Amino acid sequence: MPRIDLNSDLGESFGNYTFGDDAAVLASVSSANVACGFHGGDPHGIRTTCRKALELGVTIGAHPGYRDLPGFGRRFIDYDLDELTDEVIYQVGAVQAMARSVGAEVRYVKPHGGLYNTIAVNEEQAGAVARALSELAPELPLMVLSGSVIERVAREAGLRTVAEAFADRGYQADGTLVKRGTPGAIHTPEAAVAQAVRIATEGRITAVDGTDLEVAADSICLHGDNPAAVRLAGEIRAGLEAAGVEIRSFA
Amino acid sequence: MPRIDLNSDLGESFGNYTFGDDAAVLASVSSANVACGFHGGDPHGIRTTCRKALELGVTIGAHPGYRDLPGFGRRFIDYDLDELTDEVIYQVGAVQAMARSVGAEVRYVKPHGGLYNTIAVNEEQAGAVARALSELAPELPLMVLSGSVIERVAREAGLRTVAEAFADRGYQADGTLVKRGTPGAIHTPEAAVAQAVRIATEGRITAVDGTDLEVAADSICLHGDNPAAVRLAGEIRAGLEAAGVEIRSFA
Amino acid sequence: MPRIDLNSDLGESFGNYTFGDDAAVLASVSSANVACGFHGGDPHGIRTTCRKALELGVTIGAHPGYRDLPGFGRRFIDYDLDELTDEVIYQVGAVQAMARSVGAEVRYVKPHGGLYNTIAVNEEQAGAVARALSELAPELPLMVLSGSVIERVAREAGLRTVAEAFADRGYQADGTLVKRGTPGAIHTPEAAVAQAVRIATEGRITAVDGTDLEVAADSICLHGDNPAAVRLAGEIRAGLEAAGVEIRSFA
Amino acid sequence: MPRIDLNSDLGESFGNYTFGDDAAVLASVSSANVACGFHGGDPHGIRTTCRKALELGVTIGAHPGYRDLPGFGRRFIDYDLDELTDEVIYQVGAVQAMARSVGAEVRYVKPHGGLYNTIAVNEEQAGAVARALSELAPELPLMVLSGSVIERVAREAGLRTVAEAFADRGYQADGTLVKRGTPGAIHTPEAAVAQAVRIATEGRITAVDGTDLEVAADSICLHGDNPAAVRLAGEIRAGLEAAGVEIRSFA
Repeated sequence: MPRIDLNSDLGESFGNYTFGDDAAVLASVSSANVACGFHGGDPHGIRTTCRKALELGVTIGAHPGYRDLPGFGRRFIDYDLDELTDEVIYQVGAVQAMARSVGAEVRYVKPHGGLYNTIAVNEEQAGAVARALSELAPELPLMVLSGSVIERVAREAGLRTVAEAFADRGYQADGTLVKRGTPGAIHTPEAAVAQAVRIATEGRITAVDGTDLEVAADSICLHGDNPAAVRLAGEIRAGLEAAGVEIRSFA
Repeated sequence: MPRIDLNSDLGESFGNYTFGDDAAVLASVSSANVACGFHGGDPHGIRTTCRKALELGVTIGAHPGYRDLPGFGRRFIDYDLDELTDEVIYQVGAVQAMARSVGAEVRYVKPHGGLYNTIAVNEEQAGAVARALSELAPELPLMVLSGSVIERVAREAGLRTVAEAFADRGYQADGTLVKRGTPGAIHTPEAAVAQAVRIATEGRITAVDGTDLEVAADSICLHGDNPAAVRLAGEIRAGLEAAGVEIRSFA
Repeated sequence: MPRIDLNSDLGESFGNYTFGDDAAVLASVSSANVACGFHGGDPHGIRTTCRKALELGVTIGAHPGYRDLPGFGRRFIDYDLDELTDEVIYQVGAVQAMARSVGAEVRYVKPHGGLYNTIAVNEEQAGAVARALSELAPELPLMVLSGSVIERVAREAGLRTVAEAFADRGYQADGTLVKRGTPGAIHTPEAAVAQAVRIATEGRITAVDGTDLEVAADSICLHGDNPAAVRLAGEIRAGLEAAGVEIRSFA
Repeated sequence: MPRIDLNSDLGESFGNYTFGDDAAVLASVSSANVACGFHGGDPHGIRTTCRKALELGVTIGAHPGYRDLPGFGRRFIDYDLDELTDEVIYQVGAVQAMARSVGAEVRYVKPHGGLYNTIAVNEEQAGAVARALSELAPELPLMVLSGSVIERVAREAGLRTVAEAFADRGYQADGTLVKRGTPGAIHTPEAAVAQAVRIATEGRITAVDGTDLEVAADSICLHGDNPAAVRLAGEIRAGLEAAGVEIRSFA
């Protein structure tokens, strides 16, 4: 029976500001990327999210980002590399403590937003992130974009990786994502479900130009920012289950 | 041979802003209260401080504070108690990770500034801090003002405490500190050294009105904010050693 | 024809975090308390809000708060008074510039949340806020709780005040608000509309114990945090208009 | 009699963190680039700096930067351009208010650090900064690197510019600065004084390869981060005066 992990960003609310529908998303995923407080999230929300994930049997990952609350960690920042390493250690360690304090455990690390995108292509920042994990928790796998620079850099550093793919994004023939806002960027719900099923059952994707691509993926990334995204998350899960795919965390 | 611990706040620099002369202070103390990033400190400086403390054999403590960088954690904030608990867990956990990542370990927790002062008298915030430690790391002692509300609250919660006293502050007959900026508040260097020696050798202090007070203390707090404070820290250490007191961490 | 101003907090979104339904609320009010960036709000959202208020003919006020994004400016902070004065000047000045840059103008100042509540009773912080206005823009009126300490302090400082009352909160016989979460705290929509109409037409309120109270008010405060609040804002406006009350800014 | 302006960054302290020796630097310069609170500076320090500058007859400029306190505004951030425009308006407006509240006035704008360096070469961010000034205060000149992209972009937008040059940095033959940390980057005090005098009296500089360069400059930038920088600032001022150059603000 084919199986796949479904992951989503969670715990990103901050103080009085609610972000995303965590309760609904937690019902669809098998892995929760829990914000660490730098791009979003605060200690109270992070701890609450860890508690709920534990209750629902959802695997907890730490989701560190750039220190940029105004930009939600989505903008490239030209970090000093040592500082980046230290900030990743700090964030992952904080969430490890939050999880531990409710009887749970962080089982993987997935970088967020601008940091995620940067280390997919930038050797230096990728190295800084890999070092952070090597120095804090080399036993934790790093969740990365399938085929990215960080996937290679992390493996060279002796780390395990969990490759992820996207159901709701278009792919170029070379395996990179089609930029948001350009033709073929985002799928219809039906196409997203179909892409998820193909990833899980065949490990393949049809690129925007029709090329048939191999995409090795242990996990598919879902989103919960808005009602449509939450609905889509549920549809993808249901579509996978209908296709006989087991939703299960890699951990 | 009488002995005493000397502790000081360290790692409070932030980004481009340097605070205190950490290198000089580390040479005088046996315990380092390492900032956790909320009232001061940043990941790079925190980690660097953990590394240096390890090299010098100085015991590392986590030094959580109010989330108030503009006020350096010195102003009272009327926290929601659950949020306070969660923020203390987050901060202590982050510094535990920083320490772990350089091969060291956090061995105690000492709250900072406004939080320290508040829990010395405020039952509710004291309870929130004690809960944080109970839920994250009940094995770590809490460093507290000798005779304070938090000392009692922490013990009732089953936590160990390390009592501290001040060499350079005046005491009232009831054991509370004389407010800064009022007569008798701050000692001359000679008086500070003498007070330190009496604390360490007799467990007693002479209050501003001449009363002889019992002050049970495992540690004496030193400061390093300015050149005079750094000099005083050195003089207190030297004075204690000259009086035959061994400077040694409680841990 | 009786008339009254309706005001609400706006522009409190931050970065990726949306707060409140500004578009809906702007349709109901005659005055917009625009966040200044310390308790909430960011430059892009502030400026956008100024632009929309101008388009709709809604009067713009600056809405300064404590520097406490994690607490949304709702928690008491024990400020140094000079720093509080300077922070209020900074915030009001920033929003004046935002307004000016789109061809609009700040016409009043209303403090936010914890600061609003504190200066209603605390002479020192009230003085600090009044000084800020005196030193930056003594021509601007300060919107305050009717009958509060800041109302008196501001007048003594030679400032104009705009008194406000609440339609959806209960009042004690002494004119103070019933605490949220206690009996009589919050009105049903019907009671809120009735209270608004009585404030606007008679300048009177029925307190929770039945006492008939005089409440001099130039403005009524509406809320837009959630769909129910937005609906209530519309109902209050409609109820006032049905009762022959003109909704018009005091400015 | 030749004359030149001397400018330096001031008011960059934050809360409990002191940065630079503002008192000493203010004695050497004719123009103060006052931090606006995003890369450094806080309302209390900004206002205090405006007061002191006024007393000493030093011209006040607003010194906006990236919203990046942890990085002191020195790291490139890939901003959304509208947000950048709005953040510059906010910052300049806040400092205008601070100045106004002490009876002074902002007379120019000079971007800081990473923003300064980026707009020297990046057309898009340069445009965003120019728009901010056009929309808030088109009468204020923008202080820019002589020969930079922003100099051209600002002029095309109808803004006045004040060109500045560096006494203590080496220049390439093409007029760009030699990168810090590479040969020829930073001058000895004697060479810095000589370069300042040549800029002020001849409008020329000798590049690192010996080329004689024209550098049109209305102002020379001094630094005050450390005792050596403060000393150098005094020496440059003294050297210019000894060479018969009048130190005077361009404003």
